Amino acid sequence: MKLVQGFSKFSKEEKINFLVENYLNHFPEAKHILQQYLNDDIKLQRLHDEFIENTLTNFYLPFGVAPNFTINGQNYIIPMAIEESSVVAAASKAAKFWGERGGFKAEILGTEKVGQVHFLYHGNKDELEVFIQSIQDDFRMAVKPITKNMEKRGGGIQSIQLRTKTEDLEAYYQLHCTFQTKDAMGANFINSCLEELAKVLEDKAEKQLSSKLEVIMSILSNYVPNCTVKAKVACPVESLGKTKEEAQAYALKFIQAIQIAEIEPYRAVTHNKGIMNGIDAVVLATGNDFRAIEAGVHAFASRSGKYQSLTHAKIENGEFKFWIEVPLALGTVGGLTSLHPLVKLALALLQNPNAEELMKIVAVAGLAQNFGAVNSLVTTGIQQGHMKMHLMNILNQLDANTYEKEKAIEHFKSNTVTHSSVIEFFEKIRS
Amino acid sequence: MKLVQGFSKFSKEEKINFLVENYLNHFPEAKHILQQYLNDDIKLQRLHDEFIENTLTNFYLPFGVAPNFTINGQNYIIPMAIEESSVVAAASKAAKFWGERGGFKAEILGTEKVGQVHFLYHGNKDELEVFIQSIQDDFRMAVKPITKNMEKRGGGIQSIQLRTKTEDLEAYYQLHCTFQTKDAMGANFINSCLEELAKVLEDKAEKQLSSKLEVIMSILSNYVPNCTVKAKVACPVESLGKTKEEAQAYALKFIQAIQIAEIEPYRAVTHNKGIMNGIDAVVLATGNDFRAIEAGVHAFASRSGKYQSLTHAKIENGEFKFWIEVPLALGTVGGLTSLHPLVKLALALLQNPNAEELMKIVAVAGLAQNFGAVNSLVTTGIQQGHMKMHLMNILNQLDANTYEKEKAIEHFKSNTVTHSSVIEFFEKIRS
Repeated sequence: MKLVQGFSKFSKEEKINFLVENYLNHFPEAKHILQQYLNDDIKLQRLHDEFIENTLTNFYLPFGVAPNFTINGQNYIIPMAIEESSVVAAASKAAKFWGERGGFKAEILGTEKVGQVHFLYHGNKDELEVFIQSIQDDFRMAVKPITKNMEKRGGGIQSIQLRTKTEDLEAYYQLHCTFQTKDAMGANFINSCLEELAKVLEDKAEKQLSSKLEVIMSILSNYVPNCTVKAKVACPVESLGKTKEEAQAYALKFIQAIQIAEIEPYRAVTHNKGIMNGIDAVVLATGNDFRAIEAGVHAFASRSGKYQSLTHAKIENGEFKFWIEVPLALGTVGGLTSLHPLVKLALALLQNPNAEELMKIVAVAGLAQNFGAVNSLVTTGIQQGHMKMHLMNILNQLDANTYEKEKAIEHFKSNTVTHSSVIEFFEKIRS
Repeated sequence: MKLVQGFSKFSKEEKINFLVENYLNHFPEAKHILQQYLNDDIKLQRLHDEFIENTLTNFYLPFGVAPNFTINGQNYIIPMAIEESSVVAAASKAAKFWGERGGFKAEILGTEKVGQVHFLYHGNKDELEVFIQSIQDDFRMAVKPITKNMEKRGGGIQSIQLRTKTEDLEAYYQLHCTFQTKDAMGANFINSCLEELAKVLEDKAEKQLSSKLEVIMSILSNYVPNCTVKAKVACPVESLGKTKEEAQAYALKFIQAIQIAEIEPYRAVTHNKGIMNGIDAVVLATGNDFRAIEAGVHAFASRSGKYQSLTHAKIENGEFKFWIEVPLALGTVGGLTSLHPLVKLALALLQNPNAEELMKIVAVAGLAQNFGAVNSLVTTGIQQGHMKMHLMNILNQLDANTYEKEKAIEHFKSNTVTHSSVIEFFEKIRS
């Protein structure tokens, strides 16, 4: 098949027809499926269509809520957009458990964003250092049209520093810049600043330096180890079980599970994946970019040179303590936050938090999720809860009716859910 | 506000009313927004509701397609679910560019999945080793009911090995197990096997070992360094530009940008984030779990002890070569793949690939995305393309009509898009 020309210029109908004729002729329900996910409200649909290119329809992620979160004494219902069963249920359960034990505490450790101009320079290093110092005012002046609004809100460029990387790569240097972007995630702001700084750097270098300076690229970093938040819970050990012995044994086993995730990368990756179930669900619902958050978080988890757990736990003076420290460059203005009606609703549900408040809420969602997962792992095992939730999916796949669903839910209260055991049971009651 | 009891048992209407009364009374459009995203088809809506808990409505991600991918000689239109503008556009552009230069090649390097039983044992290590060897048949027999169907399809448990981790944590050992799960992602299968293995381990240990053995937890790992795929492109250097010199300079700059991402973590994180824009969009559209993929990929990127680029580039014998190696534990059966109608359509669009074929397609989407990003970075800068796409978002936010949009698109063909320049222009044409 030869390459198609001008596909992006086709109307939506033409695109769908092209697909159906050339790629989906074996799938007769294609047109119907694409159409049934479109919204009747033409204006709303156009809004969603224009978020990206070549939009054909809307991909549904379930939008749910986890109630009963107490964070720094305030009560929240947390919106989550996620397709994985049991994430919202586990978050809700953990929220309630810790709500009855004083709730979650959260604090911002930093809000510094980072961006870099990467360049090559084959000349004298000392000359370069002097040069970069000498053009600091030029840098500041050139970005003024971009930074003036951000400065009014209390943000802006913090520092513009030369970093020498010639030991890692021949002639390689950076302008390493730090930013405060207040309630914006700041990607556009930072990239616009950096591209302006890069222009100044090249222009001035051409006039003032004896050797050639070449900018390779200018771009923000999603690695933000100084844009971090800490969330924690704590309670007397004995309140973790019915008896003192039971509580002690539970706390110990829980802490051992965390220690394993601290020292064993194979476990740490899945441990943190579970944390991200909670984090991404809120990130998505609030219109933030989960790829940016994921990249920053996992790189942070590997910063010691070994990939490790983001959460930690210990017993101190009879208190069980469990906490997370995680980088989260989030925004509550700009991007999708004021465009996507459901994102607006999610932020309203959270009482229109500023970026720092949202960082706290998201970190708490991650910690709660991790508590739920580790709690299941060290008690009943992960499958029991997970397969119970998955039961409904299998039943839907079998096209079970309400009566059959009720029967199956009852039966599997005391029997192990596996894909084949559900099918077997279903065939029995239907026959 | 006190904790709400039994929220998950409320009907959807009761949940919404509770939210509106207690958290959204400052946001009068709440009910309308939640309702306008519901699907008219009650059965379809119920299916989506039951994917998770406390579902209120559907969160829309744009579902788009990127045409003109040639992979191992076959033509694909790749489905993408993503909210970020320019991802689909960049993928399409890269696909066409490389389609005219021989297309993408991809090959599977491995399909091994991993799971572990984590346990503590304070007794003699040699005794433990002999013991684990002696119960291998018991392990295999116990999991037979779970593995028999997987074995029919050519998968199953590959190995069950003891790993000693006592140097990292007192008394800590693992059963490190490897699996083949064919076209299933395999999480449920692996976890079910592991929980069964853990039971055997504890039972037999109680009878046969002189010291106590305690299982802490049993769970699959999302770290899958041996479940990897390689995707690549190559072309004569001179076909990268209009003149030989231009092509050579471009190739060199492109390779330098990749080298920077190989040695500088601040850059590598964002470099890989861009790759994940492409990967996650296909992962989501095909009903896979992007948190699992993200965790595995970023941990893989940090495996040397330093967080690094997933892509690489070089010139060899006059050929420009650009490639990615990435772990992708994907499934094309089970989970959402047969439940979510739009996922079924996405897989049909890709000609119903098996898991290995999907791994190749997803890796190519990541490589294409990275080519697009690095290409922009080393030529026009990232902002030009990005802000052009973002222009439409800003215009929608301003509630621009079709005439105003056309005027703005025309104007910003030759003017820099910034948030404030768009607002300024808009106010001018509207007044």
